[in-house]
Amino acid sequence: MTAAVVRAMFRSHPAHPAHADAISRCIDTCFTCVESCTACVDACLSEEGVAQLVACIRLNLDCAEVCTATGAIASRANKAGNRQLLEAQLTTCIAFCRACARECGHHAERHKHCRVCAEACLACADACDAMLATLRMPA
Amino acid sequence: MTAAVVRAMFRSHPAHPAHADAISRCIDTCFTCVESCTACVDACLSEEGVAQLVACIRLNLDCAEVCTATGAIASRANKAGNRQLLEAQLTTCIAFCRACARECGHHAERHKHCRVCAEACLACADACDAMLATLRMPA
Amino acid sequence: MTAAVVRAMFRSHPAHPAHADAISRCIDTCFTCVESCTACVDACLSEEGVAQLVACIRLNLDCAEVCTATGAIASRANKAGNRQLLEAQLTTCIAFCRACARECGHHAERHKHCRVCAEACLACADACDAMLATLRMPA
Amino acid sequence: MTAAVVRAMFRSHPAHPAHADAISRCIDTCFTCVESCTACVDACLSEEGVAQLVACIRLNLDCAEVCTATGAIASRANKAGNRQLLEAQLTTCIAFCRACARECGHHAERHKHCRVCAEACLACADACDAMLATLRMPA
Repeated sequence: MTAAVVRAMFRSHPAHPAHADAISRCIDTCFTCVESCTACVDACLSEEGVAQLVACIRLNLDCAEVCTATGAIASRANKAGNRQLLEAQLTTCIAFCRACARECGHHAERHKHCRVCAEACLACADACDAMLATLRMPA
Repeated sequence: MTAAVVRAMFRSHPAHPAHADAISRCIDTCFTCVESCTACVDACLSEEGVAQLVACIRLNLDCAEVCTATGAIASRANKAGNRQLLEAQLTTCIAFCRACARECGHHAERHKHCRVCAEACLACADACDAMLATLRMPA
Repeated sequence: MTAAVVRAMFRSHPAHPAHADAISRCIDTCFTCVESCTACVDACLSEEGVAQLVACIRLNLDCAEVCTATGAIASRANKAGNRQLLEAQLTTCIAFCRACARECGHHAERHKHCRVCAEACLACADACDAMLATLRMPA
Repeated sequence: MTAAVVRAMFRSHPAHPAHADAISRCIDTCFTCVESCTACVDACLSEEGVAQLVACIRLNLDCAEVCTATGAIASRANKAGNRQLLEAQLTTCIAFCRACARECGHHAERHKHCRVCAEACLACADACDAMLATLRMPA
């Protein structure tokens, strides 16, 4: 449902932003990643071996923060002047998502929530990558 | 996609939270509302008549903040002891969502983004309501 | 420094909000509480007995979310129409701050970070209380 | 008060993080910047000439998001493995703070809130810069 709402919002935006599909997908995967990382933190805190998951919890918290910021900033990505800032944010977001996916991946065999979360992080990194590529295309 | 990820996270949560469906739907509609309100702020800022939309922008910003908090808190809703806090947060969230839906509703004829956003706010209020009802059911 | 900045912002606000002192103090203690709860989460995660601190970590995370929302909403508190929403948010925030202070208080003997955090939570609850009282005063 | 709380939290952190002063100052200026940008958005929305302040509002919202993330991530900066991620986040944060300071600077003559906010943004950029320099020093 979320993706449909985001696309509907962008189709009704008065500035008719270019790249609406790439932006919508980027925003949507960012917030999916926020939900997933937040849920993974709580699942990790419920595990008996929580002491072994402390690095995973920290990266999940970091990744949720960065994706929250990226999703909001991408929602305002229809202004010509801020392309460099948007690129910086997307690049940083990709780095956090990939690091979190790697860390969650270490626990994916044992904890299914880490496997699901790793996939959400990679999907977000890919969507941010696609948006970066779109921004760099000649108009 | 988002809803599927949230449900998968809850199905793999070690504490097997009761009411996983109501929680998943509540979390998911909260983050959809965050995305929608954030996008509506930006669309309002792009309208020629932005001065007439200042109250709408403020409520969208407030609603996005409250729904961000509610989505995160609901993700940690598997602890017996915090039910009163969760109920307070859900009740406050419903009030903001309904007020934002009402304000967006005033502009829905003229601005399609406000109409879409009003629907997302009401869907979130309904899901929070359903979660409240579930919490209050005898186990 | 923070409190001085917030006060300077409110003194230069074109709407000349009433109760600028109560609002400034409320916003400032909210963000101090966010910082304190976020730091307490990380300190708890670094403790050997992290498994005994899981409830404290969860409440710290919840409290940080609610205080982030409250601080932002209070910054927009200069509109006549939203008083009920603001009261609901402040009331919910007070409940989370007091619950977090109580939980941190249980660990205050052993962990100084929990003692400091409990104080920040109580200071925030008190400032929100004072703001509620101010809002309810006859103009 | 805030700065004192953050320093007290770091002094009681079980991992005894190096660079506690640089980290504390960075976290504190980040949250001051969040408060300042959030208040500047609201003040801009209250100005008669709000249509001329739309770019300023957008950058203030972006800057508040990035600084929220940076403040939280820096609070977890006591882990050896994440230095590159922290550097990426700090670098991105500096870019947003400087851009926001520049935009607010354009309105500083006319709007005192923009002047105060520009100073808070620059103070945050400087503290992030100092933290970057500290991270890169030989141990």
